[in-house]
Amino acid sequence: MRISELSRRSGVPITTIKHYLREGLLPPGRPTSATQAEYGEPHLRRLRLVRALIGVRGLSVGTTKELLNAVSENETDTHQLLGLVLGARPATEPGTESATEPVAARPGDTDALLTEMGWSVSEHAPARDVITKTLETLRSLGLDYDWRSLIPYAALAEQTATLDLDQLTDTADPLERAERAVLLTVLLEPALLALRRLAQEDKSAKRYGV
Amino acid sequence: MRISELSRRSGVPITTIKHYLREGLLPPGRPTSATQAEYGEPHLRRLRLVRALIGVRGLSVGTTKELLNAVSENETDTHQLLGLVLGARPATEPGTESATEPVAARPGDTDALLTEMGWSVSEHAPARDVITKTLETLRSLGLDYDWRSLIPYAALAEQTATLDLDQLTDTADPLERAERAVLLTVLLEPALLALRRLAQEDKSAKRYGV
Repeated sequence: MRISELSRRSGVPITTIKHYLREGLLPPGRPTSATQAEYGEPHLRRLRLVRALIGVRGLSVGTTKELLNAVSENETDTHQLLGLVLGARPATEPGTESATEPVAARPGDTDALLTEMGWSVSEHAPARDVITKTLETLRSLGLDYDWRSLIPYAALAEQTATLDLDQLTDTADPLERAERAVLLTVLLEPALLALRRLAQEDKSAKRYGV
Repeated sequence: MRISELSRRSGVPITTIKHYLREGLLPPGRPTSATQAEYGEPHLRRLRLVRALIGVRGLSVGTTKELLNAVSENETDTHQLLGLVLGARPATEPGTESATEPVAARPGDTDALLTEMGWSVSEHAPARDVITKTLETLRSLGLDYDWRSLIPYAALAEQTATLDLDQLTDTADPLERAERAVLLTVLLEPALLALRRLAQEDKSAKRYGV
């Protein structure tokens, strides 16, 4: 198909598609003349993936590119791929920069939680810092909140992660599995928080009456 | 304390504090002269809360103001308060605007999920749209993903919400409970996603070997 049809079917403007082509987020089409190229279904699928990672998940062009390169290079290594996905951060992640008062870091709390759960994770996982900073913030707000309060949440997270991995092993083709890992990890995040909010509303109504 | 000490103890610059005062996010201090005022511990605590909602959670000044007003007006009504917290959206919420191709909305899927779970939630809860859009996005990417796939996640979200509510009832003072509802709902979100990511890394390593 021509770039105009690629644009129509993906809903992505032609200028944006050209930008992705220049940035290498989308492989070039098959040239049919000096100024035209032919694109196929794999381009459409890749374009939708790029759009979802940037538009829905808020990743930067650079991070998206690294992630996609990693996906194609590590097709078969699900674990390594998950590590990359887990390490990817939104372009602007609320909360990690402009936090309140600079409190003494207590990464020991996060270590204690990980030990308690028996989890073995990379020293450099950004998610460690998120937990440390959340505990710091809650503490700086005068809430008596302890890493032990997170243990039941961590137990539920463990069950969630098991669901996640079960959905990956459904897929036999390694490239498809890689894409699924990226998509399900990253794109389900807002939905999981939304489910918690809906469940809170329902439980709160049932507990306190309306 | 003077504004300079309030700034030092909160880590918030004086110009930002003045901005919050003008916007009504922080109640005025007790005037001690034409140009000076005296602030107390409640100001410090309120300032940290504002900072956390704006800086950590990314809410807009307007949303934060509404939320704080609602907290002080509805001190005793935990359910109504939770409803407000649940309705509050980050100033820039990735994913709800710049989504991919405009797909036919199928809110029926979300309704079906809510019915299946037996949850009764407001027609206008923004979290409904988040779920509908996530399902659309996954579908537009060619993934065979069905609302039924979310049932086990919803069951875990239900357990999470029960944990959340249990932590609120610890607190007897209504205003403190209101603040706690805001803080735990909103500020725990990044930590819950971080726990999922860490659990994924651990489970993935254990399942696929390193």
